[in-house]
Amino acid sequence: MSDGTVLSDTAADVVKETLAECRAATLPALRDAVGELHPRLARISAYHLGWCEPDGRPTGVHAGKMLRAALAVLAARAFGAGTRTAVPGAVATELVHNFSLLHDDLMDADELRRGRPTAWVVFGAGPAVLAGDALLSKALRMTAEMKGTPEQPAGRTLTEAVSTIIRGQAADLGLDGFPVDRVGADDYLAACAKTSGLLGGCVAVGASLADAPAAGVRTLQAAAWDLGVAWQVADDVESIWGDPAASGKPAFGDLRRDKRTYPVIAALRSGTAAGSRLAGRLSSSGARGEDELAELARLVDEAGGRAEAERTAREHLDRAVHLLGKTGGDPVALDGLAALFRHVLDRHGRRTPAPAATPAMRGAAR
Amino acid sequence: MSDGTVLSDTAADVVKETLAECRAATLPALRDAVGELHPRLARISAYHLGWCEPDGRPTGVHAGKMLRAALAVLAARAFGAGTRTAVPGAVATELVHNFSLLHDDLMDADELRRGRPTAWVVFGAGPAVLAGDALLSKALRMTAEMKGTPEQPAGRTLTEAVSTIIRGQAADLGLDGFPVDRVGADDYLAACAKTSGLLGGCVAVGASLADAPAAGVRTLQAAAWDLGVAWQVADDVESIWGDPAASGKPAFGDLRRDKRTYPVIAALRSGTAAGSRLAGRLSSSGARGEDELAELARLVDEAGGRAEAERTAREHLDRAVHLLGKTGGDPVALDGLAALFRHVLDRHGRRTPAPAATPAMRGAAR
Repeated sequence: MSDGTVLSDTAADVVKETLAECRAATLPALRDAVGELHPRLARISAYHLGWCEPDGRPTGVHAGKMLRAALAVLAARAFGAGTRTAVPGAVATELVHNFSLLHDDLMDADELRRGRPTAWVVFGAGPAVLAGDALLSKALRMTAEMKGTPEQPAGRTLTEAVSTIIRGQAADLGLDGFPVDRVGADDYLAACAKTSGLLGGCVAVGASLADAPAAGVRTLQAAAWDLGVAWQVADDVESIWGDPAASGKPAFGDLRRDKRTYPVIAALRSGTAAGSRLAGRLSSSGARGEDELAELARLVDEAGGRAEAERTAREHLDRAVHLLGKTGGDPVALDGLAALFRHVLDRHGRRTPAPAATPAMRGAAR
Repeated sequence: MSDGTVLSDTAADVVKETLAECRAATLPALRDAVGELHPRLARISAYHLGWCEPDGRPTGVHAGKMLRAALAVLAARAFGAGTRTAVPGAVATELVHNFSLLHDDLMDADELRRGRPTAWVVFGAGPAVLAGDALLSKALRMTAEMKGTPEQPAGRTLTEAVSTIIRGQAADLGLDGFPVDRVGADDYLAACAKTSGLLGGCVAVGASLADAPAAGVRTLQAAAWDLGVAWQVADDVESIWGDPAASGKPAFGDLRRDKRTYPVIAALRSGTAAGSRLAGRLSSSGARGEDELAELARLVDEAGGRAEAERTAREHLDRAVHLLGKTGGDPVALDGLAALFRHVLDRHGRRTPAPAATPAMRGAAR
């Protein structure tokens, strides 16, 4: 099934329509939730979400596609529930996502997000941290009110996802400057939990709210976990070779901060001459100029790190889509989810496998 | 009842014994909870709690009295439950407390806590923030498993307390450099929620776990709320006139950061000549030397700000103790709580009212 074709234009349009529809259904409740925070924290959160300028003037737009909300809504649909059933879960996942972005931007010292200064740059570290705390706290209050299946209460699902992403972020912090001779795939996969834990939480909360059988919830969660790994690996590729203008982030970001991303780890463990030269250069400390960063990127590529990363991302996406077909949910709705999964990887501008593991795309995903 | 006498030595000894006993009952479960975090975050948390050095070597001690755990345990006892019933709530409140300390130290740029460098100074802002996130997440997972009264589930009580303290901290951030001609008691009381919200949550979670009637829980929570205001005001006095050696914090801390604390607000609103001079000096910006800070402190005192703060702290403590007697709980256990309330204010080295509102101290609190 990994024939390397991209989503057809029609399929991509259907996904975009679905995303827009899920966003429209969720955004008012998300605005309400943010509006209930202390005004100072509501302002910071609204700026971060792209809703307003630093001084509070509305922008009239929302930054981001609200992918996590869509995952929750589509997961609920896969088990027969309507959009409205999923909205509280969808809002809570978006709150958790933005809590983690607010804190991660500070942790990673990222100064730009979607081309705008990050919240900690604009409002200071303390207020940005507190706004993140407020979003998390609000999410967990919302989840505490949620119902779900008895074996898999929706609230507990999301509370566990929060622990998982924090654990993943802790592992991720350890990847900065990790000794080149010791870093391995396990360290990397532990860090992937920061992405996978939440994507798994999104589909699990949606499915739980739809009273899905526990086995179906678990399989769906495993599928989203694989999607998260694929995404993380693809993100690493983008961080080195992506177009800064398109990503809104500085070039060579991860190499600049000496982070052991997937392509770098694969290159270091390739047993190639380029991999050895890379190890030697990464072992020397000190700030690196643009030329040095470009040379590092070239060595990672020459050692096969980029190709290996692209293959790994595809494999995890394939497995994710395959698992979707095993959840026992509604095939049409699952096709919509599969298309969304592929779209997530497409957005990185990479070629992703054509639909295959679940019944052929039928333009479903209402 | 505000006759100005301090707790008797015997009563103080009983409180200390109670605190030690509650700490001993709670500490193992707190250690377990911290031990379940990612090792990197467990280390940061353990350092913050005084359990280890930055490199992980154990200190063999716990920093702090675990007052919040004691409040939860004594509240449960007041409604007939044993210590064991209250322990999950007691641990969760300590986790929430330490989450907020980790984040607040960064927010307030405090470099010392109990005479040691704060966690963000030792481990960096990002890791310290993440450790705080992990403690909060762990607390909320624990509360999600808790039972309580149907009207007042213990978990929801604590989740709401978290929202309240975040809101209070947001108001508190606004007190830094607030315009001198506009700041008032309402702004101050909103910020007190950062302390009162959690103290209220502590007794509410303990009482809820003991299946206390909803009215009793609410009254107990109101009592702890007043205790929190008293404490906050007393803390403000200590921050200006306290002994840095005893508090482990720099002298004039709040004046240095141009914060509108209770004594300052009272002085500004006193209508005195000293208050006007204070307003003039506070309106000029720029860093202040030690002489200038000492002069500011003198003006606050001369304008009656210190006396007014001490009176306010006493009044709130009186009301807190009075409310304890209205909760309908066991009088002996409530005496123990009242003694603990007074002890909290005593620790600031100030004179606090003698026991009176509830039945006379009987050295109980078991």
